[in-house]
Amino acid sequence: MNGHLYILGMGPGDPELVTRKSERILRQTVVYAYFAKKGEVGHARKIADDMLSSQHQELRFEYPITTEIPHQSNEYKEALALFYDQSAKIIEQHLQDGQDVALLCEGDPLLYGSAMYILERLQPNYLTHIVPGITAMSGCWSAAQLPIVKYEQTLTVLPATLPLEELVTKLRLCNAAVIMKIGRNLSKVKQALQSAGLLDKAIYIERGTQTEEKMVPLTQFKDSKAPYFSLILIAGL
Amino acid sequence: MNGHLYILGMGPGDPELVTRKSERILRQTVVYAYFAKKGEVGHARKIADDMLSSQHQELRFEYPITTEIPHQSNEYKEALALFYDQSAKIIEQHLQDGQDVALLCEGDPLLYGSAMYILERLQPNYLTHIVPGITAMSGCWSAAQLPIVKYEQTLTVLPATLPLEELVTKLRLCNAAVIMKIGRNLSKVKQALQSAGLLDKAIYIERGTQTEEKMVPLTQFKDSKAPYFSLILIAGL
Ligand SMILES: C[S@@+](CC[C@H](N)C(=O)[O-])C[C@H]1O[C@@H](n2cnc3c(N)ncnc32)[C@H](O)[C@@H]1O
Ligand SMILES: C[S@@+](CC[C@H](N)C(=O)[O-])C[C@H]1O[C@@H](n2cnc3c(N)ncnc32)[C@H](O)[C@@H]1O
Repeated sequence: MNGHLYILGMGPGDPELVTRKSERILRQTVVYAYFAKKGEVGHARKIADDMLSSQHQELRFEYPITTEIPHQSNEYKEALALFYDQSAKIIEQHLQDGQDVALLCEGDPLLYGSAMYILERLQPNYLTHIVPGITAMSGCWSAAQLPIVKYEQTLTVLPATLPLEELVTKLRLCNAAVIMKIGRNLSKVKQALQSAGLLDKAIYIERGTQTEEKMVPLTQFKDSKAPYFSLILIAGL
Repeated sequence: MNGHLYILGMGPGDPELVTRKSERILRQTVVYAYFAKKGEVGHARKIADDMLSSQHQELRFEYPITTEIPHQSNEYKEALALFYDQSAKIIEQHLQDGQDVALLCEGDPLLYGSAMYILERLQPNYLTHIVPGITAMSGCWSAAQLPIVKYEQTLTVLPATLPLEELVTKLRLCNAAVIMKIGRNLSKVKQALQSAGLLDKAIYIERGTQTEEKMVPLTQFKDSKAPYFSLILIAGL
Protein backbone atom coordinates (compact mmCIF):
# COMPACT_ATOMS: atom_id res chain seq x y z
CA MET A 1 0.00 0.00 0.00
CA ASN A 2 1.26 3.46 -0.95
CA GLY A 3 1.84 6.15 1.64
CA HIS A 4 -0.25 9.34 1.80
CA LEU A 5 0.94 12.86 1.06
CA TYR A 6 0.02 15.44 3.72
CA ILE A 7 0.48 19.06 2.67
CA LEU A 8 0.63 21.04 5.90
CA GLY A 9 0.05 24.78 6.31
CA MET A 10 2.51 26.06 8.94
CA GLY A 11 1.27 29.66 9.22
CA PRO A 12 3.08 33.00 8.90
CA GLY A 13 5.91 32.51 11.37
CA ASP A 14 4.86 32.25 15.02
CA PRO A 15 5.09 28.48 15.78
CA GLU A 16 2.03 28.83 18.00
CA LEU A 17 0.01 29.75 14.91
CA VAL A 18 0.29 26.18 13.64
CA THR A 19 -3.04 24.32 13.90
CA ARG A 20 -3.50 21.31 16.15
CA LYS A 21 -4.02 19.25 12.99
CA SER A 22 -0.75 20.20 11.28
CA GLU A 23 1.07 19.60 14.56
CA ARG A 24 -0.47 16.14 15.09
CA ILE A 25 0.20 14.99 11.54
CA LEU A 26 3.77 16.29 11.56
CA ARG A 27 4.52 14.52 14.87
CA GLN A 28 3.08 11.26 13.49
CA THR A 29 4.85 11.36 10.12
CA VAL A 30 8.46 10.21 9.92
CA VAL A 31 9.35 11.74 6.56
CA TYR A 32 8.87 15.49 6.17
CA ALA A 33 9.81 17.70 3.23
CA TYR A 34 10.15 21.43 2.59
CA PHE A 35 11.37 23.98 0.07
CA ALA A 36 14.18 26.42 0.89
CA LYS A 37 16.46 28.89 -0.80
CA LYS A 38 20.16 27.97 -0.89
CA GLY A 39 21.91 29.11 2.28
CA GLU A 40 18.67 29.60 4.21
CA VAL A 41 17.12 27.38 6.88
CA GLY A 42 13.73 27.45 5.17
CA HIS A 43 10.82 29.32 6.68
CA ALA A 44 8.42 26.38 7.08
CA ARG A 45 11.25 24.21 8.46
CA LYS A 46 12.08 26.85 11.08
CA ILE A 47 8.46 27.07 12.22
CA ALA A 48 8.39 23.27 12.65
CA ASP A 49 11.46 23.21 14.92
CA ASP A 50 9.78 22.30 18.21
CA MET A 51 7.64 19.59 16.56
CA LEU A 52 10.53 17.56 15.13
CA SER A 53 12.38 14.77 16.90
CA SER A 54 15.40 12.57 16.13
CA GLN A 55 12.98 9.99 14.66
CA HIS A 56 12.14 12.33 11.78
CA GLN A 57 13.74 12.04 8.35
CA GLU A 58 14.21 15.22 6.32
CA LEU A 59 13.81 15.87 2.58
CA ARG A 60 15.14 19.32 1.73
CA PHE A 61 14.36 20.75 -1.72
CA GLU A 62 16.61 23.70 -2.62
CA TYR A 63 15.26 26.05 -5.25
CA PRO A 64 17.62 26.24 -8.25
CA ILE A 65 19.62 29.45 -8.43
CA THR A 66 17.75 31.48 -11.03
CA THR A 67 18.66 35.06 -10.20
CA GLU A 68 20.52 35.38 -13.51
CA ILE A 69 17.49 34.28 -15.57
CA PRO A 70 14.58 36.73 -16.12
CA HIS A 71 11.53 35.38 -14.28
CA GLN A 72 9.18 35.79 -17.27
CA SER A 73 11.43 33.73 -19.56
CA ASN A 74 10.78 30.20 -20.71
CA GLU A 75 14.19 29.20 -19.42
CA TYR A 76 13.13 30.15 -15.89
CA LYS A 77 9.81 28.30 -16.20
CA GLU A 78 11.58 25.20 -17.46
CA ALA A 79 14.17 25.27 -14.67
CA LEU A 80 11.38 25.47 -12.09
CA ALA A 81 9.27 22.77 -13.75
CA LEU A 82 12.26 20.43 -13.73
CA PHE A 83 12.90 21.23 -10.07
CA TYR A 84 9.28 20.41 -9.14
CA ASP A 85 9.44 17.22 -11.24
CA GLN A 86 12.54 16.06 -9.37
CA SER A 87 11.13 17.00 -5.95
CA ALA A 88 7.86 15.18 -6.69
CA LYS A 89 9.85 12.11 -7.80
CA ILE A 90 11.72 11.97 -4.49
CA ILE A 91 8.47 12.24 -2.53
CA GLU A 92 6.94 9.59 -4.79
CA GLN A 93 9.68 7.08 -3.94
CA HIS A 94 8.75 7.33 -0.26
CA LEU A 95 5.03 7.01 -1.03
CA GLN A 96 5.76 3.90 -3.10
CA ASP A 97 7.73 2.46 -0.18
CA GLY A 98 4.54 2.82 1.86
CA GLN A 99 5.82 5.82 3.83
CA ASP A 100 3.63 8.87 4.44
CA VAL A 101 5.24 12.23 3.64
CA ALA A 102 4.44 15.61 5.28
CA LEU A 103 5.22 18.59 3.04
CA LEU A 104 5.62 21.73 5.17
CA CYS A 105 4.40 25.04 3.71
CA GLU A 106 4.56 28.72 4.65
CA GLY A 107 1.17 30.19 5.46
CA ASP A 108 -1.68 28.43 3.69
CA PRO A 109 -0.47 25.87 1.10
CA LEU A 110 -2.85 26.75 -1.75
CA LEU A 111 -2.54 30.56 -1.64
CA TYR A 112 0.47 31.33 -3.89
CA GLY A 113 2.30 28.30 -2.47
CA SER A 114 4.86 26.05 -4.18
CA ALA A 115 3.13 22.97 -2.74
CA MET A 116 0.49 23.22 -5.46
CA TYR A 117 3.08 22.14 -8.04
CA ILE A 118 3.77 18.98 -6.04
CA LEU A 119 0.04 18.44 -5.54
CA GLU A 120 -0.72 18.61 -9.29
CA ARG A 121 2.03 16.06 -9.99
CA LEU A 122 1.03 13.51 -7.31
CA GLN A 123 -2.75 14.03 -6.94
CA PRO A 124 -3.61 11.76 -9.92
CA ASN A 125 -1.89 8.67 -8.46
CA TYR A 126 -1.67 9.05 -4.68
CA LEU A 127 -3.88 9.91 -1.73
CA THR A 128 -3.29 13.57 -0.92
CA HIS A 129 -4.57 15.71 1.99
CA ILE A 130 -4.32 19.46 2.51
CA VAL A 131 -4.31 21.03 5.96
CA PRO A 132 -4.99 24.78 5.67
CA GLY A 133 -2.70 27.25 7.41
CA ILE A 134 -3.01 30.76 8.82
CA THR A 135 -2.20 33.02 5.86
CA ALA A 136 0.44 35.74 6.05
CA MET A 137 -2.30 38.33 5.52
CA SER A 138 -4.42 37.07 8.46
CA GLY A 139 -1.31 37.03 10.65
CA CYS A 140 -0.52 40.60 9.61
CA TRP A 141 -3.97 42.19 9.98
CA SER A 142 -4.35 40.45 13.35
CA ALA A 143 -0.97 41.77 14.52
CA ALA A 144 -2.03 45.25 13.34
CA GLN A 145 -5.50 44.78 14.95
CA LEU A 146 -6.96 46.06 11.69
CA PRO A 147 -10.47 44.85 10.73
CA ILE A 148 -9.86 44.17 7.06
CA VAL A 149 -13.42 43.89 5.62
CA LYS A 150 -16.94 44.24 6.97
CA TYR A 151 -20.54 44.37 5.68
CA GLU A 152 -20.61 44.51 1.88
CA GLN A 153 -16.96 45.34 1.36
CA THR A 154 -14.74 43.55 -1.14
CA LEU A 155 -11.21 42.34 -0.43
CA THR A 156 -8.67 41.96 -3.23
CA VAL A 157 -5.35 40.16 -2.89
CA LEU A 158 -2.78 41.32 -5.44
CA PRO A 159 0.81 40.38 -6.23
CA ALA A 160 3.02 43.47 -6.50
CA THR A 161 4.55 41.95 -9.63
CA LEU A 162 1.55 43.06 -11.75
CA PRO A 163 2.05 45.95 -14.20
CA LEU A 164 1.36 49.43 -12.79
CA GLU A 165 -1.82 50.01 -14.82
CA GLU A 166 -3.34 46.72 -13.71
CA LEU A 167 -2.55 47.48 -10.08
CA VAL A 168 -4.26 50.88 -10.36
CA THR A 169 -7.37 49.50 -12.10
CA LYS A 170 -7.80 46.74 -9.53
CA LEU A 171 -7.06 48.95 -6.51
CA ARG A 172 -9.69 51.47 -7.66
CA LEU A 173 -12.33 48.73 -7.65
CA CYS A 174 -11.86 47.19 -4.21
CA ASN A 175 -12.62 48.44 -0.71
CA ALA A 176 -9.81 46.59 1.00
CA ALA A 177 -6.60 45.18 -0.43
CA VAL A 178 -3.59 43.08 0.44
CA ILE A 179 -0.47 43.48 -1.70
CA MET A 180 1.99 40.59 -1.52
CA LYS A 181 5.42 39.83 -3.04
CA ILE A 182 6.61 43.43 -2.74
CA GLY A 183 10.42 43.18 -2.93
CA ARG A 184 11.78 45.30 -5.80
CA ASN A 185 8.25 46.39 -6.77
CA LEU A 186 7.94 48.79 -3.83
CA SER A 187 8.15 52.09 -5.71
CA LYS A 188 5.71 50.87 -8.39
CA VAL A 189 3.27 49.82 -5.65
CA LYS A 190 3.52 53.23 -3.95
CA GLN A 191 2.82 54.92 -7.27
CA ALA A 192 -0.20 52.66 -7.89
CA LEU A 193 -1.59 53.35 -4.41
CA GLN A 194 -1.11 57.08 -4.93
CA SER A 195 -3.00 56.96 -8.26
CA ALA A 196 -5.80 54.96 -6.66
CA GLY A 197 -6.01 57.44 -3.76
CA LEU A 198 -5.09 54.78 -1.19
CA LEU A 199 -1.50 55.61 -0.22
CA ASP A 200 -2.44 57.27 3.08
CA LYS A 201 -4.41 54.21 4.21
CA ALA A 202 -1.64 51.69 3.45
CA ILE A 203 0.12 49.85 6.28
CA TYR A 204 3.46 48.14 5.63
CA ILE A 205 4.17 44.96 7.63
CA GLU A 206 7.42 43.03 7.64
CA ARG A 207 7.86 39.55 9.19
CA GLY A 208 4.34 39.56 10.62
CA THR A 209 3.94 37.36 13.78
CA GLN A 210 7.71 36.71 13.84
CA THR A 211 10.03 38.01 16.56
CA GLU A 212 11.42 40.71 14.23
CA GLU A 213 7.95 41.97 13.27
CA LYS A 214 7.86 45.57 12.00
CA MET A 215 4.81 47.67 11.18
CA VAL A 216 4.56 51.28 9.90
CA PRO A 217 2.30 53.43 7.72
CA LEU A 218 3.66 52.90 4.19
CA THR A 219 4.31 56.64 3.79
CA GLN A 220 6.87 56.33 6.61
CA PHE A 221 8.71 53.39 5.04
CA LYS A 222 11.54 55.01 3.08
CA ASP A 223 13.66 52.03 1.91
CA SER A 224 13.84 51.54 -1.85
CA LYS A 225 12.92 47.86 -1.68
CA ALA A 226 11.24 45.53 0.78
CA PRO A 227 12.38 42.13 2.08
CA TYR A 228 10.67 38.88 1.00
CA PHE A 229 8.52 38.62 4.13
CA SER A 230 6.52 41.80 3.77
CA LEU A 231 3.08 42.87 2.63
CA ILE A 232 0.86 45.93 2.49
CA LEU A 233 -2.63 46.15 3.98
CA ILE A 234 -5.39 48.58 3.07
CA ALA A 235 -8.36 48.06 5.39
CA GLY A 236 -11.94 48.66 4.26
CA LEU A 237 -12.63 50.90 7.31
CA MET B 1 -5.03 46.10 37.02
CA ASN B 2 -7.52 45.54 34.20
CA GLY B 3 -7.83 42.19 32.44
CA HIS B 4 -6.88 41.70 28.80
CA LEU B 5 -9.27 40.93 25.94
CA TYR B 6 -8.19 38.01 23.71
CA ILE B 7 -10.07 37.71 20.43
CA LEU B 8 -9.55 34.14 19.28
CA GLY B 9 -10.01 32.80 15.74
CA MET B 10 -11.51 29.29 16.02
CA GLY B 11 -11.38 28.30 12.33
CA PRO B 12 -14.07 27.04 9.96
CA GLY B 13 -15.45 24.11 11.94
CA ASP B 14 -13.03 21.19 12.43
CA PRO B 15 -11.83 21.59 16.05
CA GLU B 16 -8.38 20.39 14.95
CA LEU B 17 -8.10 23.51 12.78
CA VAL B 18 -7.77 25.67 15.90
CA THR B 19 -4.22 26.98 16.35
CA ARG B 20 -2.05 26.01 19.29
CA LYS B 21 -2.20 29.66 20.38
CA SER B 22 -6.00 29.95 20.47
CA GLU B 23 -6.14 26.62 22.31
CA ARG B 24 -3.57 27.64 24.93
CA ILE B 25 -5.18 31.02 25.61
CA LEU B 26 -8.67 29.54 25.82
CA ARG B 27 -7.53 26.87 28.30
CA GLN B 28 -5.83 29.55 30.44
CA THR B 29 -8.69 32.03 30.43
CA VAL B 30 -11.59 31.49 32.83
CA VAL B 31 -14.13 33.80 31.18
CA TYR B 32 -14.97 33.15 27.55
CA ALA B 33 -17.60 34.86 25.39
CA TYR B 34 -19.25 34.18 22.03
CA PHE B 35 -22.05 35.32 19.73
CA ALA B 36 -24.90 33.00 18.75
CA LYS B 37 -28.28 33.08 17.11
CA LYS B 38 -31.29 32.35 19.34
CA GLY B 39 -31.93 28.61 19.55
CA GLU B 40 -28.49 27.68 18.22
CA VAL B 41 -25.44 26.42 20.12
CA GLY B 42 -23.18 28.95 18.43
CA HIS B 43 -20.59 27.86 15.88
CA ALA B 44 -17.46 29.12 17.67
CA ARG B 45 -18.78 27.69 20.98
CA LYS B 46 -19.25 24.27 19.40
CA ILE B 47 -15.71 24.24 18.00
CA ALA B 48 -14.36 25.05 21.48
CA ASP B 49 -16.13 22.10 23.12
CA ASP B 50 -13.11 19.89 23.91
CA MET B 51 -11.09 22.86 25.22
CA LEU B 52 -13.56 23.92 27.90
CA SER B 53 -13.66 22.64 31.48
CA SER B 54 -15.96 23.08 34.47
CA GLN B 55 -13.64 25.93 35.61
CA HIS B 56 -14.72 28.07 32.67
CA GLN B 57 -17.35 30.79 32.93
CA GLU B 58 -19.50 31.51 29.88
CA LEU B 59 -20.80 34.81 28.47
CA ARG B 60 -23.32 34.13 25.71
CA PHE B 61 -24.39 37.04 23.50
CA GLU B 62 -27.57 36.30 21.54
CA TYR B 63 -28.12 38.35 18.41
CA PRO B 64 -31.40 40.30 18.65
CA ILE B 65 -34.17 38.87 16.47
CA THR B 66 -34.13 41.14 13.46
CA THR B 67 -35.66 39.00 10.71
CA GLU B 68 -38.66 41.36 10.58
CA ILE B 69 -36.52 44.46 10.01
CA PRO B 70 -34.93 45.08 6.56
CA HIS B 71 -31.15 44.73 6.94
CA GLN B 72 -30.39 47.99 5.11
CA SER B 73 -32.62 50.04 7.41
CA ASN B 74 -31.44 52.38 10.14
CA GLU B 75 -33.64 50.50 12.60
CA TYR B 76 -31.60 47.32 11.98
CA LYS B 77 -28.30 49.15 12.30
CA GLU B 78 -29.41 50.74 15.57
CA ALA B 79 -30.60 47.41 17.00
CA LEU B 80 -27.23 45.85 16.23
CA ALA B 81 -25.21 48.81 17.52
CA LEU B 82 -27.13 48.63 20.80
CA PHE B 83 -26.50 44.89 21.00
CA TYR B 84 -22.74 45.37 20.51
CA ASP B 85 -22.75 48.21 23.08
CA GLN B 86 -24.38 45.94 25.64
CA SER B 87 -22.10 42.98 24.87
CA ALA B 88 -19.00 45.17 25.12
CA LYS B 89 -20.27 46.55 28.46
CA ILE B 90 -20.56 43.04 29.90
CA ILE B 91 -17.04 42.13 28.76
CA GLU B 92 -15.80 45.45 30.15
CA GLN B 93 -17.13 44.64 33.62
CA HIS B 94 -14.96 41.51 33.71
CA LEU B 95 -11.91 43.40 32.44
CA GLN B 96 -12.42 46.01 35.15
CA ASP B 97 -12.59 43.24 37.74
CA GLY B 98 -9.12 42.22 36.56
CA GLN B 99 -10.34 39.14 34.68
CA ASP B 100 -9.11 38.30 31.19
CA VAL B 101 -11.82 37.52 28.63
CA ALA B 102 -11.49 35.24 25.56
CA LEU B 103 -13.92 36.12 22.76
CA LEU B 104 -14.38 33.10 20.45
CA CYS B 105 -14.87 33.78 16.73
CA GLU B 106 -15.74 31.75 13.64
CA GLY B 107 -12.90 31.58 11.13
CA ASP B 108 -10.59 34.57 11.31
CA PRO B 109 -11.87 37.32 13.64
CA LEU B 110 -11.17 40.33 11.41
CA LEU B 111 -12.54 38.99 8.10
CA TYR B 112 -16.25 39.88 8.16
CA GLY B 113 -16.41 38.99 11.87
CA SER B 114 -18.63 40.46 14.60
CA ALA B 115 -15.66 40.62 16.97
CA MET B 116 -14.49 43.80 15.22
CA TYR B 117 -17.42 45.69 16.74
CA ILE B 118 -16.31 44.63 20.22
CA LEU B 119 -12.70 45.46 19.35
CA GLU B 120 -13.54 49.01 18.24
CA ARG B 121 -15.44 49.63 21.48
CA LEU B 122 -12.79 48.28 23.87
CA GLN B 123 -9.49 48.91 22.03
CA PRO B 124 -9.22 52.55 23.20
CA ASN B 125 -9.24 51.67 26.91
CA TYR B 126 -8.08 48.07 27.33
CA LEU B 127 -5.26 45.79 26.23
CA THR B 128 -6.55 43.76 23.30
CA HIS B 129 -4.94 40.86 21.39
CA ILE B 130 -6.07 39.17 18.18
CA VAL B 131 -5.21 35.56 17.39
CA PRO B 132 -5.84 34.88 13.69
CA GLY B 133 -7.90 31.85 12.64
CA ILE B 134 -8.12 29.60 9.60
CA THR B 135 -10.65 31.36 7.35
CA ALA B 136 -13.69 29.55 5.95
CA MET B 137 -12.28 30.05 2.45
CA SER B 138 -8.91 28.41 3.30
CA GLY B 139 -10.77 25.52 4.92
CA CYS B 140 -12.92 25.13 1.82
CA TRP B 141 -10.24 25.33 -0.88
CA SER B 142 -8.08 22.93 1.15
CA ALA B 143 -10.97 20.46 1.46
CA ALA B 144 -11.53 20.78 -2.30
CA GLN B 145 -7.74 20.50 -2.93
CA LEU B 146 -8.11 23.49 -5.23
CA PRO B 147 -5.06 25.77 -5.67
CA ILE B 148 -6.81 29.13 -5.47
CA VAL B 149 -4.19 31.57 -6.85
CA LYS B 150 -0.68 31.29 -8.31
CA TYR B 151 1.92 33.48 -10.03
CA GLU B 152 0.47 36.90 -10.87
CA GLN B 153 -3.17 36.02 -10.30
CA THR B 154 -5.54 38.18 -8.27
CA LEU B 155 -8.00 36.86 -5.68
CA THR B 156 -11.18 38.76 -4.86
CA VAL B 157 -13.41 38.01 -1.89
CA LEU B 158 -16.98 39.22 -2.40
CA PRO B 159 -20.14 39.15 -0.29
CA ALA B 160 -23.10 37.79 -2.29
CA THR B 161 -25.20 40.63 -0.88
CA LEU B 162 -23.72 43.10 -3.42
CA PRO B 163 -25.98 44.30 -6.29
CA LEU B 164 -25.87 42.16 -9.44
CA GLU B 165 -24.05 44.77 -11.56
CA GLU B 166 -21.31 45.20 -8.98
CA LEU B 167 -20.82 41.44 -8.71
CA VAL B 168 -20.45 41.17 -12.49
CA THR B 169 -17.97 44.09 -12.75
CA LYS B 170 -15.80 42.73 -9.98
CA LEU B 171 -15.94 39.11 -11.15
CA ARG B 172 -14.83 40.17 -14.63
CA LEU B 173 -11.70 41.77 -13.19
CA CYS B 174 -10.34 38.97 -11.01
CA ASN B 175 -8.69 35.67 -11.79
CA ALA B 176 -9.91 33.85 -8.73
CA ALA B 177 -12.86 34.62 -6.47
CA VAL B 178 -14.53 33.59 -3.25
CA ILE B 179 -18.20 34.48 -2.79
CA MET B 180 -19.43 34.46 0.80
CA LYS B 181 -22.77 35.06 2.56
CA ILE B 182 -24.77 33.34 -0.18
CA GLY B 183 -28.10 32.43 1.48
CA ARG B 184 -31.00 34.00 -0.42
CA ASN B 185 -28.64 35.58 -2.96
CA LEU B 186 -27.95 32.28 -4.70
CA SER B 187 -29.84 32.91 -7.96
CA LYS B 188 -28.39 36.44 -8.27
CA VAL B 189 -24.89 35.00 -7.79
CA LYS B 190 -25.45 32.34 -10.44
CA GLN B 191 -26.63 35.05 -12.85
CA ALA B 192 -23.55 37.18 -12.10
CA LEU B 193 -21.21 34.23 -12.64
CA GLN B 194 -22.95 33.43 -15.91
CA SER B 195 -22.54 37.04 -17.14
CA ALA B 196 -18.88 37.03 -16.13
CA GLY B 197 -18.32 33.70 -17.92
CA LEU B 198 -17.33 31.92 -14.70
CA LEU B 199 -20.34 29.73 -13.89
CA ASP B 200 -18.73 26.51 -15.16
CA LYS B 201 -15.66 27.02 -12.95
CA ALA B 202 -17.63 27.65 -9.74
CA ILE B 203 -17.51 25.12 -6.89
CA TYR B 204 -20.18 25.24 -4.17
CA ILE B 205 -19.08 24.20 -0.66
CA GLU B 206 -21.35 23.82 2.36
CA ARG B 207 -20.09 23.35 5.93
CA GLY B 208 -16.45 23.10 4.82
CA THR B 209 -14.24 21.05 7.23
CA GLN B 210 -17.31 20.08 9.28
CA THR B 211 -18.67 16.51 9.51
CA GLU B 212 -21.59 17.38 7.18
CA GLU B 213 -19.30 18.90 4.52
CA LYS B 214 -20.77 18.97 1.02
CA MET B 215 -19.07 19.99 -2.21
CA VAL B 216 -20.41 20.10 -5.80
CA PRO B 217 -19.92 22.08 -9.01
CA LEU B 218 -22.32 25.03 -8.64
CA THR B 219 -24.15 24.05 -11.84
CA GLN B 220 -25.21 20.84 -10.06
CA PHE B 221 -26.55 22.62 -6.98
CA LYS B 222 -30.26 23.06 -7.69
CA ASP B 223 -31.67 24.40 -4.39
CA SER B 224 -33.14 27.89 -4.57
CA LYS B 225 -31.18 29.15 -1.57
CA ALA B 226 -28.06 28.13 0.33
CA PRO B 227 -27.55 27.66 4.09
CA TYR B 228 -25.52 30.14 6.17
CA PHE B 229 -22.35 28.03 6.13
CA SER B 230 -21.69 27.96 2.42
CA LEU B 231 -19.46 29.70 -0.08
CA ILE B 232 -18.47 29.54 -3.74
CA LEU B 233 -14.90 29.17 -5.02
CA ILE B 234 -13.57 30.06 -8.45
CA ALA B 235 -9.92 28.99 -8.71
CA GLY B 236 -7.41 30.89 -10.84
CA LEU B 237 -6.31 27.66 -12.60
C1 LIG C 1 4.85 32.82 -2.18
S1 LIG C 1 3.81 33.82 -1.16
C2 LIG C 1 3.23 32.61 -0.01
C3 LIG C 1 2.00 33.04 0.76
C4 LIG C 1 1.56 32.04 1.80
N1 LIG C 1 1.25 30.75 1.20
C5 LIG C 1 0.34 32.54 2.59
O1 LIG C 1 -0.61 31.78 2.79
O2 LIG C 1 0.35 33.68 3.04
C6 LIG C 1 5.04 34.74 -0.27
C7 LIG C 1 4.57 36.11 0.16
O3 LIG C 1 3.83 36.02 1.38
C8 LIG C 1 4.04 37.19 2.16
N2 LIG C 1 4.47 36.77 3.51
C9 LIG C 1 4.72 35.51 3.91
N3 LIG C 1 5.00 35.48 5.23
C10 LIG C 1 4.93 36.76 5.68
C11 LIG C 1 5.09 37.38 6.97
N4 LIG C 1 5.38 36.66 8.05
N5 LIG C 1 4.93 38.73 7.05
C12 LIG C 1 4.63 39.46 5.94
N6 LIG C 1 4.46 38.92 4.71
C13 LIG C 1 4.60 37.59 4.58
C14 LIG C 1 5.02 38.07 1.43
O4 LIG C 1 4.28 39.04 0.72
C15 LIG C 1 5.67 37.09 0.48
O5 LIG C 1 6.13 37.73 -0.69
C1 LIG D 1 -19.87 36.58 8.83
S1 LIG D 1 -18.88 35.66 7.69
C2 LIG D 1 -17.57 35.16 8.75
C3 LIG D 1 -16.32 34.72 8.02
C4 LIG D 1 -15.21 34.21 8.96
N1 LIG D 1 -14.80 35.24 9.91
C5 LIG D 1 -14.00 33.70 8.18
O1 LIG D 1 -12.87 34.03 8.53
O2 LIG D 1 -14.18 32.94 7.24
C6 LIG D 1 -19.86 34.22 7.50
C7 LIG D 1 -19.68 33.54 6.14
O3 LIG D 1 -18.55 32.69 6.16
C8 LIG D 1 -18.77 31.56 5.32
N2 LIG D 1 -18.51 30.35 6.11
C9 LIG D 1 -18.19 30.29 7.42
N3 LIG D 1 -17.90 29.02 7.79
C10 LIG D 1 -18.05 28.25 6.68
C11 LIG D 1 -17.88 26.85 6.42
N4 LIG D 1 -17.48 26.01 7.38
N5 LIG D 1 -18.11 26.42 5.14
C12 LIG D 1 -18.48 27.27 4.18
N6 LIG D 1 -18.65 28.60 4.37
C13 LIG D 1 -18.43 29.08 5.61
C14 LIG D 1 -20.18 31.67 4.77
O4 LIG D 1 -20.11 32.23 3.47
C15 LIG D 1 -20.83 32.63 5.74
O5 LIG D 1 -21.86 33.36 5.13
